[in-house]
Parts: sequence; C-alpha cells; structure tokens
Amino acid sequence: MTKKRIGILGATGLVGQRLALMLDNHPWFEVSAVAASDRSIGKRYGDAAPWRLAAPMPAAVSDLTVGPCEPPLDCDLVISSLPSGIASIAEPAFAAAGYPVISNSSALRMHPDVPLVIPEVNWRHVDLIDAQRRLRGWDRGFVLTNPNCSAIALVLALAPLAERFGLETVAVTTMQAISGAGYPGVASIDITDNVVPFIDGEEEKLEEEPGKLLGVLAGDHIEPASFRMSAQCNRVNVQDGHLESVRLSLQRKASREDLLDALASWSSLPQELGLPSAPASPVLLRTERDRPQPRLDRDASAGMSTVVGRVAPDTIFDWKMTLLGNNVVRGAAGAAILNAELLVALERV
Amino acid sequence: MTKKRIGILGATGLVGQRLALMLDNHPWFEVSAVAASDRSIGKRYGDAAPWRLAAPMPAAVSDLTVGPCEPPLDCDLVISSLPSGIASIAEPAFAAAGYPVISNSSALRMHPDVPLVIPEVNWRHVDLIDAQRRLRGWDRGFVLTNPNCSAIALVLALAPLAERFGLETVAVTTMQAISGAGYPGVASIDITDNVVPFIDGEEEKLEEEPGKLLGVLAGDHIEPASFRMSAQCNRVNVQDGHLESVRLSLQRKASREDLLDALASWSSLPQELGLPSAPASPVLLRTERDRPQPRLDRDASAGMSTVVGRVAPDTIFDWKMTLLGNNVVRGAAGAAILNAELLVALERV
Amino acid sequence: MTKKRIGILGATGLVGQRLALMLDNHPWFEVSAVAASDRSIGKRYGDAAPWRLAAPMPAAVSDLTVGPCEPPLDCDLVISSLPSGIASIAEPAFAAAGYPVISNSSALRMHPDVPLVIPEVNWRHVDLIDAQRRLRGWDRGFVLTNPNCSAIALVLALAPLAERFGLETVAVTTMQAISGAGYPGVASIDITDNVVPFIDGEEEKLEEEPGKLLGVLAGDHIEPASFRMSAQCNRVNVQDGHLESVRLSLQRKASREDLLDALASWSSLPQELGLPSAPASPVLLRTERDRPQPRLDRDASAGMSTVVGRVAPDTIFDWKMTLLGNNVVRGAAGAAILNAELLVALERV
Amino acid sequence: MTKKRIGILGATGLVGQRLALMLDNHPWFEVSAVAASDRSIGKRYGDAAPWRLAAPMPAAVSDLTVGPCEPPLDCDLVISSLPSGIASIAEPAFAAAGYPVISNSSALRMHPDVPLVIPEVNWRHVDLIDAQRRLRGWDRGFVLTNPNCSAIALVLALAPLAERFGLETVAVTTMQAISGAGYPGVASIDITDNVVPFIDGEEEKLEEEPGKLLGVLAGDHIEPASFRMSAQCNRVNVQDGHLESVRLSLQRKASREDLLDALASWSSLPQELGLPSAPASPVLLRTERDRPQPRLDRDASAGMSTVVGRVAPDTIFDWKMTLLGNNVVRGAAGAAILNAELLVALERV
Repeated sequence: MTKKRIGILGATGLVGQRLALMLDNHPWFEVSAVAASDRSIGKRYGDAAPWRLAAPMPAAVSDLTVGPCEPPLDCDLVISSLPSGIASIAEPAFAAAGYPVISNSSALRMHPDVPLVIPEVNWRHVDLIDAQRRLRGWDRGFVLTNPNCSAIALVLALAPLAERFGLETVAVTTMQAISGAGYPGVASIDITDNVVPFIDGEEEKLEEEPGKLLGVLAGDHIEPASFRMSAQCNRVNVQDGHLESVRLSLQRKASREDLLDALASWSSLPQELGLPSAPASPVLLRTERDRPQPRLDRDASAGMSTVVGRVAPDTIFDWKMTLLGNNVVRGAAGAAILNAELLVALERV
Repeated sequence: MTKKRIGILGATGLVGQRLALMLDNHPWFEVSAVAASDRSIGKRYGDAAPWRLAAPMPAAVSDLTVGPCEPPLDCDLVISSLPSGIASIAEPAFAAAGYPVISNSSALRMHPDVPLVIPEVNWRHVDLIDAQRRLRGWDRGFVLTNPNCSAIALVLALAPLAERFGLETVAVTTMQAISGAGYPGVASIDITDNVVPFIDGEEEKLEEEPGKLLGVLAGDHIEPASFRMSAQCNRVNVQDGHLESVRLSLQRKASREDLLDALASWSSLPQELGLPSAPASPVLLRTERDRPQPRLDRDASAGMSTVVGRVAPDTIFDWKMTLLGNNVVRGAAGAAILNAELLVALERV
Repeated sequence: MTKKRIGILGATGLVGQRLALMLDNHPWFEVSAVAASDRSIGKRYGDAAPWRLAAPMPAAVSDLTVGPCEPPLDCDLVISSLPSGIASIAEPAFAAAGYPVISNSSALRMHPDVPLVIPEVNWRHVDLIDAQRRLRGWDRGFVLTNPNCSAIALVLALAPLAERFGLETVAVTTMQAISGAGYPGVASIDITDNVVPFIDGEEEKLEEEPGKLLGVLAGDHIEPASFRMSAQCNRVNVQDGHLESVRLSLQRKASREDLLDALASWSSLPQELGLPSAPASPVLLRTERDRPQPRLDRDASAGMSTVVGRVAPDTIFDWKMTLLGNNVVRGAAGAAILNAELLVALERV
Repeated sequence: MTKKRIGILGATGLVGQRLALMLDNHPWFEVSAVAASDRSIGKRYGDAAPWRLAAPMPAAVSDLTVGPCEPPLDCDLVISSLPSGIASIAEPAFAAAGYPVISNSSALRMHPDVPLVIPEVNWRHVDLIDAQRRLRGWDRGFVLTNPNCSAIALVLALAPLAERFGLETVAVTTMQAISGAGYPGVASIDITDNVVPFIDGEEEKLEEEPGKLLGVLAGDHIEPASFRMSAQCNRVNVQDGHLESVRLSLQRKASREDLLDALASWSSLPQELGLPSAPASPVLLRTERDRPQPRLDRDASAGMSTVVGRVAPDTIFDWKMTLLGNNVVRGAAGAAILNAELLVALERV
C-alpha cells in the first residue's frame, strides 16, 4: 500500500510538533508538507520549529521547507492545528481546493454541516461529509473536526453509558494540564503553587460538544442528544493529562456491576477494523481508590484511552467517578490521526 | 483584662505551630502550656518542634517545656490539634478534668452532644454544651469542635444562601492544598506534576458536616438541615488554599443580584461583637472571570474569609461558583481561635 | 516634609506594579505619574495594568492616567523598570530634560559614567553623578542604576568580606526564581518538573557587575575591584527568591568565626541614616544545615536582606556558602526605592 | 543461554520496583526472588509493594513471595537496594554465604577492599574482588557497589577528560530530583515553590567517590586519583533527573574542540562487549544554549547516558559545563544491572 501523504497546517506549534512525531514511521501515512505562519515560511522545518518535545524531531520532517497555510500543498490530505481565527479561513479554503481537512481547531466544530468525530463514539457521522459537499459546493474536499480535548476524554466514557443506559444529566469539573494551552500558553508565575479556575471558552465547548457527539445523523445535520451538561473548568500545574471529576444520572437504572461492565467491555469500529492508533480498549478501568492520576495513567494505551476510576454512587446524581484523558495524544494529535485512519478505512480519503 | 491562658495539645505539629504563631500577641490569649507526643515530652518547645513556618517561632513559646497530652495542664482552656485516634481519648479526659476543650480533630465532631461550630454560621450551637455536660456528667469542662477545613470554606458561603433562599442540593468538587495533610503529609513524588483524586475520609466529612452546621439546636442534639450534599475531593500541588467548584440549587428562586448581595452583605455575631480574629466580611466577592485563585486570594482578610467568584447560572443546578478558603488559617488554627474568642464573648470560658 | 513625587516608567509591568505597591504609604515618596508603552497610554492605570500581585492595587495609583515614556512627566524623580532596548533611549532623554532617573534596567549599568549602586555597598559611587553631568552636558538630571537581581543578593554578602579580608576569586551557581523573568516570562511547560540551565545575558551580568560595585570611584569612572568572578545561572520552579551556591577565596586568611562575624555584624550608611527601607542587618545568618530556602527565607527583613547559611570550608576555594535574595524586593523594586532614599538623604534629589 | 536468576533485596522500595521493571524481559536475567523488611515477609510481592511507577508491575514478579533479607535466597546473584544501616549487615552476610552481591547502598562503597564500579569508567576494578575474598575469607561470594547517583552522572563525563587531559580540580553544584530520596522521601510542603540546599551526606559522597572511581587498582585497594573535588548539593522540585553545574581545570591544555571530541567520542568496554543495557554513547553532547534539561533529556539513551551541554571557558577554572544524569535509571537500578551484565561478561558470576 502506498502511504497517504499528509500536510500539516500549524506545523511549528505544539500540536503540530506532536503530529510530526506521531506520524513518523506510521504504517499508513507520511508527512509530505508543513505549513505555518508568515515568519516561518521558506525556512527548513528543523530551523523554524522551536522543538519542545523530549523525543527528537524526526529526520524526515526536519528538512521539509515550511510553506504558507493556503492551497496548494503537496499532500493527499491536510491535518490542521491552526488557531481558531486563522483556521476559520484556511480550512474551508483547502476543502474548496479539493483537500480532505481534519481539524483540531474549534472554529468549525459546531457548524451544522461539519462532522465532529471521535471514531469509537460516532464514526457514522462521517457521512455528514456528503451533505457538507452539497451545501458548500465542494467536490472532493471536506472538513472533519476533532472535539475539544476535555470533551474527548469525557465522551469516550459517556458513550458506552449512553448506549446501554441512556444519559439524563452530566456534571463535570475539570482539572486541566498546562500543555492544553499550547506554547507559550500559561505563564509559570500564574500556575506555580496555584490553580486557575478559568479557561477561556472551555466550559462552553464542554457543555456543547458532547450533545453533538452523542447525537444522531439526520440528513444534513446532527440531532443532538438530549441530556443536560454542566461544566466547570480549572487549570492545574500538571504537564499532560486532564483529570475530570464527573457526576451523572442515567435514564435506566444500572447496578455498579452493569456500569463497570459497560465501561470496560466497550469497543467499537476502530477496534474491529484494527486501526493502527486505536487502543485495545477505549476505556480502561482502575480499581484503586486513588486512581486515575495524570502522572501515572496518562501514558496507558500509549495515551489513547480514557482511564476511569472511583466509580461510586452519588447522593444527588446516580453516579460519580473520576476520569483522565491524555490531552496531547488522544485530546489532540492522536485524535486527528485516528480520524485520518478512520477516513482511510471508510474510503473517504 | 487578664489574658486567658491556653494550652495547646499537639503543639509540635503543623497546626500546633500555626496556633502558637497566631496566638503570639493575641489581645485576649497567651500560650501557657504545650503538650505533644512521648518523644517530645520534657524538651524545650524550641528544641522539640521542627518549625516549618516562614515566620519565626515566637520567643514566648520557645522556652515552654513540652508536657504530656493528659490533664492537668497549666492553662484556662485547651486547644487541641491532635490526630483523631489520640484526640478521641485525650480530649474527653481534659473535659472531664474541668477544661474547656476546642478541638480541630475529626474524632468527636459528629457526636450528637458535641457542638460543631463556625462562629458566623451557628454560634447558637454553643448552647449544646449544657446538654453535653448533663449527659457526660462533666461540671466545668466541655468539648467544642471545628469543622473540616474544606467544610468551613464551603459553609461560610452556604450559610447566607441557606438563610435567605434555603438550600436544596449542593455538589462540590475540591482541589485541596498539600498543607491540609499536615507534616510530612503528601510525598512530593506523589504530587509534583500530578493531581491525586483521593483524600482519605474527606468526601465523607464534607458530605456530613454541612448538614449539622446548618442545622438547628434541638435540646440535646442538632437537627441537621435537610439539603443533599455531594462531594468529590482532589489533592493538587498548591501549598495553601483549598479551591472548590460548587454547584447548588435553592428552595426559593433568586436573581444573580440577590445571590451576590446575600453573599457580600452577610455578617453575623462575630462581626457585631468585634471578635479580634473575625474578618470584616466572612465572604469576599471577586468579579474577575479568573478568580479566586489560591496564590492570589488565600491571604485576603488575613486568611479568615471565604473568597467567592465566577457566580453564574448552571444548566443542571440553579447556580455554579468557585470559592477559596485558607485551610491553614480559617480552616484550622484560625477556626479554633475564633471559636475560643466566641466562647469568651459568650462567657463560656 | 513634603513628599517627593515619583514617576514610574514601565508602570504596568511586574516591577512597575511592585513599585506602585511598595511606594503606597511611603513616608518620603508618593507616586504622581505612571508611564508605559503605547497600548496603555491614555487609560486609567487601574484598567491598563494587568495586576498580578496578591496585595490589592493601591487606590491612589489606580486613578492615575498612563502617559508616554518621554518627558515631561509630572514628578520630581523617575524610577524606570523599562525593558533594556527602550530604556537606553528613554532614560537619557529624561535625564537630559532635568529628571533624576533611577533605573532597574541593564541598559546603562556598565557605562563608565553611570553609577551602579547598592546603598550599603558603594554609596560613595553616587558622586559619579557629577562626572556624568559634565560629560553629558546635563544640568540637573542624571541616571543612577540598580544592579541585576542576582548580583545584588551576592554582593551584599561579598561586601563585608571584601572590606575585611579582600576577595580573590568568587564562583557562584544560581537557582533563580521565575518572577525574575517578568510577565509572562517563563512558559509553564518549560519549567514545571524542570530546571533550565540558561538565562539570557545573566552570566555575563553576574560576572561583570560585582567588580564595578566593589570598585573605587576614580574621578570620571569606577576602577573595578580585581577579584575574578565566575557565574553559572539556572532557572528553577520557584515563585520568588534567588538561591545561590557560592564558593570564594580571600586575600587574607579568616577563621570561620571571623567570617561569620564579618557577615552578621556588617552595617553601613543606610542603617546609620535610618533610611526607611533599609533592613536592620543587610546580611542575616542562618545556622540550620538546610537554610536558607526560598519559601521560608525570602520575606525575612521584608525581603531587603541577603540570607546566608551553610558557611563551611571548601576543598578548592577557601569557603563555600549558600545565600538567598528576594529578587522582586531587594532585587528590583526595593533596590530602586532604597537608592531613591539614599539620593534624598545625600541631597541629590 | 540459561538466564541468571536474580534476587532483589529491598524489593518493595522505589529502587527495588525499578529493578523489577527493568529486569522484566531482560535477555540475560530473570527475577527469581524478592526480599524486604519484616512487614512484607510472607506476602505476595504484588500485595506487599506499594507500586509507584507509571509502567505496570511485571506479572512474573507479582506472584513471588517476599522473603527475609538474609541467606539463603533462591537466586544466582543478589542486587541490593537496602537502606545503608541494614545493608551493612545483610550484604556481607549474603557474600559470606556464597552469593555475588551488587549493591546500590552507600554502606560499603568506600571500604578499601570493595570495588566501586561504573562499567565504562573502571571495569578493571572488578578484580579487587580477589583481594576482597582473600581478606574476608569468602570463597564464591563478594560485594561490588554502585556509586552515588550524582557521582555516576558526573564521573561518566569526567572519565574521558581524565583519560585524555588529566584532572586537576572539579567543582560541582547539583540540582537533584526528588526521586533520589526514595519513598516517601521529600515532603511536598518542603519542596513545592522551593529549593532545599541540603541533602544529608550527599556532598561528602560526591567529594569522596570520584577519586576512587578514577583511581588505580593497586593490589588490595584502589589508589585514588589525585584531583581535588568540591561539591554543593541542592534539592529541586523535579521528579527525575539530576542536573549539575560543573567547573573543572585540566592538567594538560585542551581546546574546546578537543574537549567536545573527548566527550562525544568516548566509549569503553561495555560498548565493545555490547552489554544489553550499555548506551551507544556514555556521554551525549547537546549544542543548544539551554540544554540539558531534566524533563527533556532524562530519557535520552533510555536514561543510561550523561547528557552534557553549555561547555564554555570559565574565568577561574579552565572550563564550565552543565550535565544531566537520570538518577533512577543510570543513577540506581540501571547502574546495578549494567554492573551485573559486566560481571557476567567477565565471567565473575
């Protein structure tokens, strides 16, 4: 099989770097082009990118020349980690020019005709691409988006519960890692010996995206799931790994045994298809009373699973639990790559 | 006025040290005796206490000789910061021997005849002392307790809402400072670059104590308030200051304006009496979208107020907000001292 | 006595904020004007400054209107905390216009005709102002500078040793706080769970400035002291307080007793004159084997002393020791204010 | 080849856990026995060890029953990570009973007849075993020790310089990770937002061990190398990775080019023999001005190399540089395993 050639938009940023790293030696993909903002254009990627990862920059990518974030780009599909403002212009431009675009940006996520996809949760929403093309008059290109990093971690655990028991209400309080803010992101004097109870736009995204993710494809849009979501978002002094304290009520009664079984036994299309980046289990259960923890659990399943623990009855909701997602892997670069793999498997690219 | 003479039980621990510091130059009190565990007995306090505070040890206390945690002790009243196991024996022994005991320990808090008091919230519960003496056959001595540190911060903000609107449900997710675990407490390799979603016994205390605090004295016990409490407790890498993400529903509708007014305008008996350690306002409101924060707000009102911010409508509950309490001051040493001041003002000691 | 009226250049930055705070209720000074970069000009200071300090913004300063960093400015003297590039233009412009300028910037420190002053160490260098005026053709204005924050902490401890025993060699390895980099300064993902062994330009400053500080005024320049300095500078994850591991050799043999006495007993003109911000002892000695520590010792003497500990013989140099300086107080805002007090006392402003 | 069977003393501690992990699937070794202190004896290892590592406990070791730290133990050789006090009794007891013992403890390191070995640096010192057996009357058993973690990182970089240029003086200032103190080790309230300029016994070890490591085997003892060593040791808030600021003078002049070449090109017997845990290069050079850093460089060469950067001329010594060693891998468990591999290759076990 010939490898698909990927172009990365926003390649010099933190997510762009992680993409370059995770795509090195990928069985289906290779990075053929990198694009970034004006001050990097024309430079070698190895000189333009202020590399921030412990693993070294892949040799294959370091010699690529950085191009502008506009078509054409020498690639078969585009993965974008552009800031929202730029993304809202550049991503449709690439799609209009015939490129499949997988976006990590929040710009287009909630547009009615844009699929917002976690492969295990709602791979069927990929078909919204057809409506999108019709509506926008695009022939071969399209835009498909990843959810927000906190939403991915959460909804991976909600999906099996929604399927088996139905969701009524979900209240989540997040403790999010500093890497979620990109680079330079959070100033160290703001977070050392501190917690910041505010992340711009995050509570809105976390209250909005799960409904679309767990909704149903209805022709030219997604009919959102009907449960109520409440989010409170905090930034803590952790490098990687978003921890979330979750409470939820179900439509149908469940025993603790049923609940744990629903979480632990769940798998979906990416597992059946054996997508290269799909974890064996989308949800990992920990039974110790003090897990999950970011430092100890963020690299489980190479960062691609949500780790759930402390599942217990709640006094107001039906259940409470704590979950952890790796925001830099499953919450960003890994989310885009798994979506790309899904699109290949579904013969959409 | 002659100063009341205070004996500190558990004087060499972190809370004991803070008590010694805060009682230095107190207008009503002086430390006349210090007691601790076996290995300190007979030593100068200055030699026995592994001083961990930035402010220097008060000269007056450093020359006291450490005695055993059993009566008699050369003092008018006793403040105890003993571990729970020892407290459950030592504190009743002192009370039986005629000493007023103010305890920071969890051992006796939920005993039906033991008052659990935050002066602004439920100073009327002090009268439970009379029933306690009758039941236990004590003549002059008694035991009165402080709540758990997270509960104090929370209930200071709940009390004005309970008074004006009535409480229906309260769900709190805490992010608690490492100093709350005493010394040595949390191992650094467990909390650096990490969050631990578990504190032994904390969720139970935080679900149990607010009902008693907001309850009504009914002869020989407290009739608990009837709202439902849910708690999820996390340890974060912050020195001092417990941050709490709170959601709550009220019995009677309130506008945001009403709610803010109830919080900001609240004061109670300690403010009226001008108790030396009472803050001007038990609740401080911050209007910035990213406050309160532990590092910036824990020393407001010298650490004696709960700081509240981010008050907004919630999608499941009526309201959500974020609050901060200084766990080492209002949550421990300052709580005991304000209770001692209350008891003096009410002529109970 | 009428208060001198101070204008702050760079007033919205972190050092500018600290200056505004420390000058509130100062017995000799009041802030009469604030100046900053273009995007703040014309705004209320309270709206323009993104306040980052735990203590609230002084009411007096919050209503001032931010002006441009060029003369005229409504004040008797100017304290500048401008970035180096801007300072090199703005500070001479103010001096030429007749203003005394005290600068925290590195721009002019090593100019031969610019005094670099720590009041206890080299108050006599103030007289270099006369040569500066002659050379530059200024009549009433002048520029006097504070040293680098690490240099101040170090030289406060070196000065009494230089005076009594003479210095031969000094090798220092610093562990510097994140607040030394201003705001936003160090990105949190760069320093959490990390040490960065590089601070741009810092080793050069630290090797260069001590010689000038301990040198002798020789007409129109300072003849530098002749000892050799070596510096290695590291950034650590500490909010405030630069810790320095120091080794040094002396020209004349000293017993450990002599050495400790020289450090602990030292005082100078600011102490004799009773300058308002002068600490009782410029150097504080700690005898515990694990002190000084940033968190425990940075607020000793309100942050205006260097704290020294672990003084012991070295196997290569004569002595080794550890010292701590509060970089935000004695290393920046407090340094400028003490210099301003010195200039008033010497009738230079 | 049949795998050698290893018994771990102190198996439940942090180094013991790392040993169990690193020996899982080792090509030459398998763990056949685990021993620990009284309260663990008789339990399954999986139940007795409070597992603190992110990687899961190897299945093979979890079912072993914990035995006492005294012979006999069902194994071919013993690796000990016992605390010093217990090690000084248990390790000779095992050697006397015929077991080869590789020790991570400081107890016996400086005994004249005990080899202190870093395989690349002084593999010839293994022959001191013969004198040890004669002196102590042991037939098949012996004790061989790893150096202190900071000393290993340092001496890996000193050895090639000593070989080619000769060492005269070495002054090192360390910034050591919290994992170096074991578990629970450093209390979090002591190190969050702080640096502690003291580690008990560390400066002594670091001044003493390098001379023995770079010395020459002279019959029944090691003639230490003659250069002078000075050490200042600090604890910083980093999980893993000791950073060291080093200054040194050489016996023979070297250009910077020569120096870098000596470091980068160095390899030794473990590399020639292809020992399974030997890194390709014992010393890795970084040329960026802000490297090495603990978080980014501690996992280079799987934690088995010393990473060196910032090599520059010094004003007092000949050279200054910064180096980093992974204290939990090359500084402890990996050091013992590489020594075990060396002993197998030299047919000593």
